[in-house]
Amino acid sequence: MRRDAPAAEIKTVEQKLHDLGFKTGRLEGTEITLIGVYGDITTLPKGEIEELPGVEQLIPISRAYKRVAQKGVPGKPIFQTVKIGQVVCGGDELAFIAGPCSVESEAQIMEAAQLVKEGGGDALRGGVVKYRSSPYSGWEGLGASSAEALKKGLQLIVKAGKAFGLPTVVEILDQADVPLYEDTGVDCLQIGEPNSKNQALLNRLRDTPLPVIHKRGNSLDTEAYLLWVERIMSAGKENVILCERGVAAGNRYTRNTLDVGSIAAFRYQLSGQPIAVDASHGTGIRDLVHPGTLSGIMAGASVVLVEAHPNPLIAKSDGHQGLFREQLVALVKAARAAWTLRRELDREYLPTSVLEKAYFERMPADRKRFFGK
Amino acid sequence: MRRDAPAAEIKTVEQKLHDLGFKTGRLEGTEITLIGVYGDITTLPKGEIEELPGVEQLIPISRAYKRVAQKGVPGKPIFQTVKIGQVVCGGDELAFIAGPCSVESEAQIMEAAQLVKEGGGDALRGGVVKYRSSPYSGWEGLGASSAEALKKGLQLIVKAGKAFGLPTVVEILDQADVPLYEDTGVDCLQIGEPNSKNQALLNRLRDTPLPVIHKRGNSLDTEAYLLWVERIMSAGKENVILCERGVAAGNRYTRNTLDVGSIAAFRYQLSGQPIAVDASHGTGIRDLVHPGTLSGIMAGASVVLVEAHPNPLIAKSDGHQGLFREQLVALVKAARAAWTLRRELDREYLPTSVLEKAYFERMPADRKRFFGK
Amino acid sequence: MRRDAPAAEIKTVEQKLHDLGFKTGRLEGTEITLIGVYGDITTLPKGEIEELPGVEQLIPISRAYKRVAQKGVPGKPIFQTVKIGQVVCGGDELAFIAGPCSVESEAQIMEAAQLVKEGGGDALRGGVVKYRSSPYSGWEGLGASSAEALKKGLQLIVKAGKAFGLPTVVEILDQADVPLYEDTGVDCLQIGEPNSKNQALLNRLRDTPLPVIHKRGNSLDTEAYLLWVERIMSAGKENVILCERGVAAGNRYTRNTLDVGSIAAFRYQLSGQPIAVDASHGTGIRDLVHPGTLSGIMAGASVVLVEAHPNPLIAKSDGHQGLFREQLVALVKAARAAWTLRRELDREYLPTSVLEKAYFERMPADRKRFFGK
Amino acid sequence: MRRDAPAAEIKTVEQKLHDLGFKTGRLEGTEITLIGVYGDITTLPKGEIEELPGVEQLIPISRAYKRVAQKGVPGKPIFQTVKIGQVVCGGDELAFIAGPCSVESEAQIMEAAQLVKEGGGDALRGGVVKYRSSPYSGWEGLGASSAEALKKGLQLIVKAGKAFGLPTVVEILDQADVPLYEDTGVDCLQIGEPNSKNQALLNRLRDTPLPVIHKRGNSLDTEAYLLWVERIMSAGKENVILCERGVAAGNRYTRNTLDVGSIAAFRYQLSGQPIAVDASHGTGIRDLVHPGTLSGIMAGASVVLVEAHPNPLIAKSDGHQGLFREQLVALVKAARAAWTLRRELDREYLPTSVLEKAYFERMPADRKRFFGK
Repeated sequence: MRRDAPAAEIKTVEQKLHDLGFKTGRLEGTEITLIGVYGDITTLPKGEIEELPGVEQLIPISRAYKRVAQKGVPGKPIFQTVKIGQVVCGGDELAFIAGPCSVESEAQIMEAAQLVKEGGGDALRGGVVKYRSSPYSGWEGLGASSAEALKKGLQLIVKAGKAFGLPTVVEILDQADVPLYEDTGVDCLQIGEPNSKNQALLNRLRDTPLPVIHKRGNSLDTEAYLLWVERIMSAGKENVILCERGVAAGNRYTRNTLDVGSIAAFRYQLSGQPIAVDASHGTGIRDLVHPGTLSGIMAGASVVLVEAHPNPLIAKSDGHQGLFREQLVALVKAARAAWTLRRELDREYLPTSVLEKAYFERMPADRKRFFGK
Repeated sequence: MRRDAPAAEIKTVEQKLHDLGFKTGRLEGTEITLIGVYGDITTLPKGEIEELPGVEQLIPISRAYKRVAQKGVPGKPIFQTVKIGQVVCGGDELAFIAGPCSVESEAQIMEAAQLVKEGGGDALRGGVVKYRSSPYSGWEGLGASSAEALKKGLQLIVKAGKAFGLPTVVEILDQADVPLYEDTGVDCLQIGEPNSKNQALLNRLRDTPLPVIHKRGNSLDTEAYLLWVERIMSAGKENVILCERGVAAGNRYTRNTLDVGSIAAFRYQLSGQPIAVDASHGTGIRDLVHPGTLSGIMAGASVVLVEAHPNPLIAKSDGHQGLFREQLVALVKAARAAWTLRRELDREYLPTSVLEKAYFERMPADRKRFFGK
Repeated sequence: MRRDAPAAEIKTVEQKLHDLGFKTGRLEGTEITLIGVYGDITTLPKGEIEELPGVEQLIPISRAYKRVAQKGVPGKPIFQTVKIGQVVCGGDELAFIAGPCSVESEAQIMEAAQLVKEGGGDALRGGVVKYRSSPYSGWEGLGASSAEALKKGLQLIVKAGKAFGLPTVVEILDQADVPLYEDTGVDCLQIGEPNSKNQALLNRLRDTPLPVIHKRGNSLDTEAYLLWVERIMSAGKENVILCERGVAAGNRYTRNTLDVGSIAAFRYQLSGQPIAVDASHGTGIRDLVHPGTLSGIMAGASVVLVEAHPNPLIAKSDGHQGLFREQLVALVKAARAAWTLRRELDREYLPTSVLEKAYFERMPADRKRFFGK
Repeated sequence: MRRDAPAAEIKTVEQKLHDLGFKTGRLEGTEITLIGVYGDITTLPKGEIEELPGVEQLIPISRAYKRVAQKGVPGKPIFQTVKIGQVVCGGDELAFIAGPCSVESEAQIMEAAQLVKEGGGDALRGGVVKYRSSPYSGWEGLGASSAEALKKGLQLIVKAGKAFGLPTVVEILDQADVPLYEDTGVDCLQIGEPNSKNQALLNRLRDTPLPVIHKRGNSLDTEAYLLWVERIMSAGKENVILCERGVAAGNRYTRNTLDVGSIAAFRYQLSGQPIAVDASHGTGIRDLVHPGTLSGIMAGASVVLVEAHPNPLIAKSDGHQGLFREQLVALVKAARAAWTLRRELDREYLPTSVLEKAYFERMPADRKRFFGK
């Protein structure tokens, strides 16, 4: 509704919608009033509604993620780059982030950092407080017991990262810990899948200067996820990286169902933000991380997130999906080759928008040739 | 592994498992070492493994939610009651909790409380800080802007509840707010669906004396959900209420898919905790809340959670699924009738365990009669 | 498009839609041309489109299941009854159909029929050719091997039904077998879940005078299922019964997720056809069939479909979900009590359409009271 | 159970299982008796059970798809090739199958064949009888009206294929039509997604010498799908091609969720059959077919199935997902480049089985270094 629309006009619009069989909800912002229309809006006589007094605009919900949405003109999208330390994500090079599920000890994270560096990775990941589906797992990360322990854990991974020239990516679970992460020198905050819709945490991250990797919740539709990402970005923050890590489906063999169709939709249609693929969680099976990662890159990911460990057989968490050193080396090499190929092929990618006009003009002739009319 | 199992024994067990083609993960608790076995454990030669030195016990994951699990003996389960104020949930009477999606003003929540009371409800619900899927909805609850606003909002609903003798149920989004909720006199904390796996929040709730309604995440399997509930209960807390509010499936017509099979599984097989059914979110369609609620009661729910508003047409959030006064009145009456009927019918419910023996003994005779052998 | 719309007009409409960013598909019927509009049609300027020359009507897809759709006026729907033999489904009485998963021998099906009759059931079900997820199950029904075997198997269940005055419901897998089912005296054909989208079979059933129970495919949305049901009914057939038997979701505990929200949607909003609930497949767990069935009745089902066997422990298929005699007796009694209660409660069910007007008129006063404006 | 196991032994085993709390089902084959154990078999004391008299073997269900399963030894799998005409699928070269959703006229299919040939494709696809979700779509294919029409339609595509040296792939909906497809010279039969579990059709295809592309049902788990494929292969048929075309999940943006994790699982763990990726149905959005296809190849597909049309704007069905000529040309080129890269990278793919031993031996040293014990 227009800013100055009187209540009577608002009421008239709602009455009209109810008469047409729609349910409505009213959202009163400080400046405007939104009337939400629920139900099968395919029957909505938009022209008729728009002519009612006071109506400003009909906004489909899909425009609601305006900051995370793709900018530019059709055929010439603008892509946003996000820096993690000095590593540029979403630019000309693939960004490869690897590391253990959790920081387990100084020796372990130092060796892990060395492994990532020597393996050709760009950044080091590692959890200091861990998500666990069972409260009895016995291991919730080095930093789970106290603020002091958390600080020490963060310092360990930052130290390891610095020793090998790798910026660090660490998951954050509690909004109260943001200053600690910032002060300790962590280079990027990660929001885990279970927190994908944690409103208090997302609101808090609006204010951090650190880049954020926001993992997609496993039951969020492609566009619904972008609305949750928009929550972080809505006040102006720009350095956010999308991350597909598998959705819930009927599959029982793989732990999750890696949704490369959404990666492609983000890259080619919906968003200009960098997209990470996490095939470790996306498949949950160590030997499928390699093909899953390559698959995600070809779909449109420019950032890779994988779990790797100096010896996954003794990892305290998620060891079954952590890569061995040799596998990491092979994957980094393969991923960069896949990236190079996709960059080349992308130059010849042809969206419908650049072709459609010619075919439209051919329609009468084609119809005559095919159908004789 | 046994507490005193030397590393060599642990290694031998793992080697054995690897030789058999299993992946393993090791979880080192302070007292014992758990070896997680991943993959198709139907092939696991359990007898053989259990005889290896150092092996304490093979624990299937399904036993992992021990506090939330059903107690008693087969055929004679023990059910836990949980009190919200003076209202007993999971006992002889149905507990009916109703109220607006959000507290919008003092007048609104007072009328809502009156509506719930006169309609026959037992407790008042209402959100003071609201979950919103879009950051631009323009309404995140009276208490969204500051701690002071939150306090005032909580005071409003507590006042309304007291005025009409109704205990109050309010959603909490931020672990830092627990003391405020406790101090203001809220009677029950609700964890919303988006926070179902918010580890930091769940951990924090271990310490509150207030009862908690923990809504099931829409992508959590029946038993996986119980593990997240167990997180709150694992240190001894007992007053937790389960809540089914719909899962994600391929359905597009209803907002979620209300999973009454899981309600039945909780009630008849898995848990002794009270179970709430929330058909407002479970269907997302006002006119389906009535049949959805009755359906949930017949499946095993003893607590009802619905949204109702003095005038849903002007509700600031979720008005399309909020009940009108007349609908609330009809539903309370219907729900209590359904509850009474189920209680009666339950006396004649016969689990397989009490019948199976007789049929086992008849098997040879039946086989001969049916198949001649 | 209008029947006489020239190609140029059609082209203009499509051009307009493409200019607006929509994808279109053209469907050329013998009488009219349909232009399918794909994508986010919330942005479609309907008024503008409808004024273009040649445009007949904008039809949202949801009207596409016109025969299966609910008739009557809002608040006064008309419900269709369907007779299976002399048993009326969708009328004043609950129809209770029970029987073994498969007909295993003459003695077995005779005892099963007796069990159903004495247990209080109305009709006898039993498969003669069985769906099996594995080709090595070793049992695909008495009738799987040849046309002759199929005939004999069908004769057995028909004989058993007649002996106890029960009409018979038998699944059909092959369209070529329709005459055999008709000639043998089977009273109702059942389409199993795996055949829910079997176009050749559904087309063939348009011509049978027998009533059909069409089970919902486990990945079909509420309305998409109705379109497949519409396929049987589109040429005029009316005696079709809907059946909800569980959808695929992330759940692993129950075999399927019984979707009572869709049952409620069929009954209260979408269709006038009778609705069956099959909690045997819907839960896949014998001890959940009882609460699952009652739940389905309260949601809106008027037909119950369950598996029961004289001795499920020796059943050749699906014995784990087949009811024991005592369980069947208890369930028939409970189901009829639930049905009676729902019929009573339904008289006081209030759809929004009968209430909304009064609340609309109160809106200004309510808003003033609640929000001071 | 052993072949000669007396009933008493079988009964004893079942009694034991029931005592342990398991449900059982008995499957009587001609040679052996299978006892199916349902429930949480992680608790099954396998060693104990196997020692009971009469027990032959405990077979986990996952071995049930023995013919479709991967052969060879770990690390050295054997892959089966399948020929469609002279085109080898699953061998050294990528097989690219393209064509319109449906054969619409002789001129249309001839141009389509030319398009596929010139675009670099290997085989021509096209439907003569079409699956339609609505019975009112007005177009069910040239061959929908009669056997004669079907024959003519098949002849058209065969003629077009021969004219351009392309073998043809055509969907079959009715088992009665198999001889007609064989006699007309169609080179490969396709089973559509809606028929993925059509038992009568699958059984019938056991006997055709033609290769079969069996599309995965959109609610079938990775391994459950292989059991349905096994149905065709169980009597010895070997020339079957797997096809992933998207599963049902909560996604609303893409038409289906393309499950590349299952493609990877088929290729690297479960099966030796060739795997096709169908990103046209897998995404349902024309501009995502390109990245979706490349993604599927990197995951493990060796066959590509896409829809392309001389002018998709006038296609009678599925035009919105059909590629334009220029898009097909770009995709064939890109797909072959991706295939070449994957073949190279595959040489360096390292499954866990070849690495694990070394890391197992390092465990004590690594543990000491990391954890001091």
